[in-house]
Amino acid sequence: MAKKDTKRDADKKRKKSPPALRELLRIPPGEGAELASYDPRATPGGPRDKAAGQEAMTPMAERLAGLQDRLYAASTAGDHRRLLLVLQGMDTSGKGGTVKHVIGLFNPSGCRIRAFKTPTPEERSHPFLWRVKRALPQRGEIGIFDRSHYEDVLITRVRELVPRRDVGRRYGQINRFEQSLADDGVTIVKVFLHISYEEQRDRLLARLGNPDKHWKFSPSDIDDRALWPAYQEAYELALHRCSTEAAPWHLVPADRKWYRNWAISTLLLEHLEELDPAYPKADFDVEKSRERLLSEGRP
Amino acid sequence: MAKKDTKRDADKKRKKSPPALRELLRIPPGEGAELASYDPRATPGGPRDKAAGQEAMTPMAERLAGLQDRLYAASTAGDHRRLLLVLQGMDTSGKGGTVKHVIGLFNPSGCRIRAFKTPTPEERSHPFLWRVKRALPQRGEIGIFDRSHYEDVLITRVRELVPRRDVGRRYGQINRFEQSLADDGVTIVKVFLHISYEEQRDRLLARLGNPDKHWKFSPSDIDDRALWPAYQEAYELALHRCSTEAAPWHLVPADRKWYRNWAISTLLLEHLEELDPAYPKADFDVEKSRERLLSEGRP
Repeated sequence: MAKKDTKRDADKKRKKSPPALRELLRIPPGEGAELASYDPRATPGGPRDKAAGQEAMTPMAERLAGLQDRLYAASTAGDHRRLLLVLQGMDTSGKGGTVKHVIGLFNPSGCRIRAFKTPTPEERSHPFLWRVKRALPQRGEIGIFDRSHYEDVLITRVRELVPRRDVGRRYGQINRFEQSLADDGVTIVKVFLHISYEEQRDRLLARLGNPDKHWKFSPSDIDDRALWPAYQEAYELALHRCSTEAAPWHLVPADRKWYRNWAISTLLLEHLEELDPAYPKADFDVEKSRERLLSEGRP
Repeated sequence: MAKKDTKRDADKKRKKSPPALRELLRIPPGEGAELASYDPRATPGGPRDKAAGQEAMTPMAERLAGLQDRLYAASTAGDHRRLLLVLQGMDTSGKGGTVKHVIGLFNPSGCRIRAFKTPTPEERSHPFLWRVKRALPQRGEIGIFDRSHYEDVLITRVRELVPRRDVGRRYGQINRFEQSLADDGVTIVKVFLHISYEEQRDRLLARLGNPDKHWKFSPSDIDDRALWPAYQEAYELALHRCSTEAAPWHLVPADRKWYRNWAISTLLLEHLEELDPAYPKADFDVEKSRERLLSEGRP
């Protein structure tokens, strides 16, 4: 018995590849997360330092662009799959930086990016998921939400913009909505960018120190910091109630920008590799077309 | 008199910088262009060779991204200007390649890209400009049309999809539409990618030679080549009737991909530099905000 077990363990060890980053960063469905227990400066599963992290981006860029090309190509032959990256996090946590540095690695023609701001009067006149449904990626595309329907259980909860009871109902509505997307072939990659209170202060100070960035700053950003604990609590609730098998949350420590870029690129890579989209086979006679082209005259 | 003139000429010469590429490539409003007189392999105003052309892209990328950032920033302070790049050209002329290689230099979050395909039944039920109006860039954005409302005077004309008389009315409708966009602060950069009949054949053969590109090919692409002269004529008409002061056409020789990328980047750069968008000045007390951040305690 003992011997057998040892052999099995050895087999297991030999075959074992490093755990996928998505496993490492996933908020286990049903379990939730206490944010204070996660170090925003950590680099779980990541390269050893900034230089190594940046170096890892180049080969990853090529693989990401290649997979995106296959995803789009497959859609032209009826594959209805697509990917949706949902970015959430406190102000300055790096949502915009992620779009610039990670999404910038893709072919822009296959990306559908939407930044959700304060709802317009028209948006407010509809149910909260209305504006989100209009911004979804189409088959073959990679969609990116910079903020999302989660704002409707985050700022809305913290600032009590709608009755608490209504907010409470939204978690279930979100889960059903995301399940229906998954059923439709949407791979949802939800990322919470976890930064520290101190890092946010430093980033706000950096904005103040650069006149070209003053437009990104508002004194209300400082007022919001007084609500930091309430926001963290709202995030914990959202991560707890909406990390599902169909669409789990991932917590990405985001105090280090290089790690954030590396981690989100890796998450996208893992999900796209799992999709493994295929270039469609030609539905025409390739040789015959070649001959036609080679033998044609001037029109 | 003679002396004075000479002095003036000398002054003129000294001050004279190389003509802007936009002047060089513009189809003069009212004059039109005979396509056969333009060499698709030419490199007007361009770097001396491919290596120099590619090298010129790196510093240009930084300037383009910087101007885009300023354009977007300015929009947050009420500047309503935006830019719209319209790409037209025969199959394989490089519209998609331009989006990938030129638009890929920008921050994707500020780009609004739309590829116009065969109209859907819904689109067909509306006037031809309807779908175009829905895809326009918003203030601060860079919009990109891969094909556009010009399809409605190109393939529509060649294939006689609507009565010739109706097509004839569309040139004026397009001019009025574009004038109204210009009045709204849209800088329209219209680019016709000019490739040769032979280059198209080579590019189609290259697609046939690569199974990963078969999805981009259809035997009807070869049938379309029989209509090459009709398409060239339709383009000549569109370039003639719709090159206006408000929105002139530019003819970019496109047999050489490196020149195409360089030329379109340069056109965008010239137009963005002319817009010269400015970072908004802070409308709050920067020093006071800094002090608040530095003196605050933990919430």
